[in-house]
Amino acid sequence: MHDVVIIGAGFSGLEAARRLAPDHDVVVMEARERAGGRVLTHTFANGDETDLGGQWAGPGQDRLYGLIAEMGFITYPLWDEGDHLVRAGRLKRYRGTIPSLSIPVLLDLNRALSRFEAMARQLDPAEPWTHPQAQMWDRITVADFLKRHTFTKRAREMFTIGIGAVFCAEPHELSLLHALFYARSGRSLDALLSVSGGAQQDRVHGGMGGLATAVAASLGDVVRYGEAVQAIGWGKDGVTITTSRQSWRARRVILALPPSQALGIRFDPALPPNRDALWRRMPAGACIKCVAQYARPFWRESGLSGQAVGGDLAVRVTFDNTEQGRSAGLLLGFIEGEEARRWSQVSAETRRDAVLDAFAGFFGDEARSPIDYADKDWTSDAWTRGCYASILGPGVWTTLGQNMRDPIGPIHVAGTETAVQGFGYIEGALEAGARAADEVRAALG
Amino acid sequence: MHDVVIIGAGFSGLEAARRLAPDHDVVVMEARERAGGRVLTHTFANGDETDLGGQWAGPGQDRLYGLIAEMGFITYPLWDEGDHLVRAGRLKRYRGTIPSLSIPVLLDLNRALSRFEAMARQLDPAEPWTHPQAQMWDRITVADFLKRHTFTKRAREMFTIGIGAVFCAEPHELSLLHALFYARSGRSLDALLSVSGGAQQDRVHGGMGGLATAVAASLGDVVRYGEAVQAIGWGKDGVTITTSRQSWRARRVILALPPSQALGIRFDPALPPNRDALWRRMPAGACIKCVAQYARPFWRESGLSGQAVGGDLAVRVTFDNTEQGRSAGLLLGFIEGEEARRWSQVSAETRRDAVLDAFAGFFGDEARSPIDYADKDWTSDAWTRGCYASILGPGVWTTLGQNMRDPIGPIHVAGTETAVQGFGYIEGALEAGARAADEVRAALG
Repeated sequence: MHDVVIIGAGFSGLEAARRLAPDHDVVVMEARERAGGRVLTHTFANGDETDLGGQWAGPGQDRLYGLIAEMGFITYPLWDEGDHLVRAGRLKRYRGTIPSLSIPVLLDLNRALSRFEAMARQLDPAEPWTHPQAQMWDRITVADFLKRHTFTKRAREMFTIGIGAVFCAEPHELSLLHALFYARSGRSLDALLSVSGGAQQDRVHGGMGGLATAVAASLGDVVRYGEAVQAIGWGKDGVTITTSRQSWRARRVILALPPSQALGIRFDPALPPNRDALWRRMPAGACIKCVAQYARPFWRESGLSGQAVGGDLAVRVTFDNTEQGRSAGLLLGFIEGEEARRWSQVSAETRRDAVLDAFAGFFGDEARSPIDYADKDWTSDAWTRGCYASILGPGVWTTLGQNMRDPIGPIHVAGTETAVQGFGYIEGALEAGARAADEVRAALG
Repeated sequence: MHDVVIIGAGFSGLEAARRLAPDHDVVVMEARERAGGRVLTHTFANGDETDLGGQWAGPGQDRLYGLIAEMGFITYPLWDEGDHLVRAGRLKRYRGTIPSLSIPVLLDLNRALSRFEAMARQLDPAEPWTHPQAQMWDRITVADFLKRHTFTKRAREMFTIGIGAVFCAEPHELSLLHALFYARSGRSLDALLSVSGGAQQDRVHGGMGGLATAVAASLGDVVRYGEAVQAIGWGKDGVTITTSRQSWRARRVILALPPSQALGIRFDPALPPNRDALWRRMPAGACIKCVAQYARPFWRESGLSGQAVGGDLAVRVTFDNTEQGRSAGLLLGFIEGEEARRWSQVSAETRRDAVLDAFAGFFGDEARSPIDYADKDWTSDAWTRGCYASILGPGVWTTLGQNMRDPIGPIHVAGTETAVQGFGYIEGALEAGARAADEVRAALG
């Protein structure tokens, strides 16, 4: 009889374990053979590393910076010097967060962004359904918002690319309330879209995957790999957890996995209908993260930052992902939303070619000749099934959102999707893990 | 090594088994201890019966009428005489399909319905994503359609109640394309909303649950109850199916269960991402079906049909569900969509009182004194998790819909959600079961 079993060795489960392990009998069950969940560091043939999952830290993410420091990891800023590129028709250079577009388009885009931010600021991220306009905003999509509040096609396109970059989903898939909540939970849409001063500001040497591995290692044999949980029996006396290998008894369990993954666990007795219905309405966005490695970051020689946005090729958002202190240059591109559905069905070679085509469209033909390449299609990953996080369609938050994080008897719920601050981010995973640990500590007395 | 294992003993799985069993080695695995799936007949204390799941047959549902006749069951029409009631402000009587409303509201409602039907007629129900406007219609919700094509609040309210009655969901939850497809798949929205000449025309003596039980019994020990499938391994050599009790080998498997229930099965290797993503976007609507039994159908004495619509109480759609040839009168009420979320959380007594309140609001105080009462909250049923069928939100059909019914290696997919004609209805379950059986027959050679 353990005190608590934690399901999932992503940052949320690891944080819960870190807090409980010193004075409780804790077991972490991880279906994979590695820690990290939606965080994963890849090693290139030459030994250089790059993150193929969550990778950034930014202002306000105090828990994450705290963990990085505590584990002895070191951050460095994402390369953010030089001109950015935007393809809206022709390819153009710009600086700052907002691309260089025509004056009417810029005014239009700015007005829509300001309106969105003003609405988001009004929400309580702990209870977004309590806002007086919550039901109205939840019954329309971000596409409805854009139809109403933008007047130029280009502004709508740019806003849509921003939404894609943040949610890995299309505007018509997202409840406006969810998008507003998400921005509020991560400070603001501007912060979520920004590099310096925003959510893409800093990276860590050794990768976020390296950080997760280090945290897991610090927990010792508390973490058990390759044990997929199949069933959870629960009641007043605690829980019985059945994995592919054996059964475990515990007084409490913390679900630290994406909500839609919890649908793969058979609960006995069945969970309350509104919890189940919520999880069935929380599929993840679609994302393929692609990194090409070049002999050097050649784009910097033309005064380019490596950040580009727009176009109609597979990749519509790029960053210079070069590791500080390494000679090789890394270009990072995201394939998102409907594009990810399409490019997840082709061969690895076809996808690589399409990504390099898109890179070349921004940075010239030199981008067609990397020395190495890696990508990760998160929709194909059976233990994640999409990234970065769950998306909520119209009507879900206001009818079912109250079931997001409350415990059900001895079952506690963590994972970034249950966070108040940083929903969808590593920061939120840490907050949720800490909160669930507090709940368990209080319950165990 | 069996020829085929069929998962689910609802009408779809049973139909596949009926077609394959004569000349193949077939096993049907059913998690419950009964056949029928989303069809279920309840027996009152006095021995009278009523369906608490799917219950109707109507014109065009030739497969269902054929099965009823073949099994020796007899249909009778739902009681459809007398005045219907509509509560839109005051309670009013009317006849026919369209409630008596003010002239401007009637014109408005008629125009919106005609427009909807005209759009639906243009779709190919086998491939709704191929229509030239498919993407546009898929990116907006039924709520968007109503905003654009109705001008009076009352018309919007009545249309919304109709949508609730057909989908057990709210207009803002539904892709317009899905609603149009669904109407086309079931002939027309008018047919789906109608009693005589429509989808609520006929019932069967002994109940639809009785019919399912009879079909299952005719298959003998082919059907195995209480075996919940946990995992399916698959490859060129067939499938290995692991249940709560044992493992089974077969050359082919047919999944004849709601798509979202398939998420509870662990596939090895994992299913293609777009199939998984589709199923994760197919939660079911929310429905509680409620039947009160009275000494006699007292409402008929006041010239009422027992059919009522509207209001703002728990039940907004009622029918006279009296069994032909019995003296007791049965009133049937549906709690749907957001209301079902609310009323699924209260005690059985509280819900019963709310339902009787709503019945009394339409049919007078006599409705408060039934001799018996039964209801079924389908959102609480762990093997169904909602009714009548899956609903598709914006963007799903056009990006993922092509993955609805194709086999994946030795895995075939049945269930009403894969039907071309009668998606969401028993008719569709039969079509899908027959189609999957044909696929398996062809594959086994």
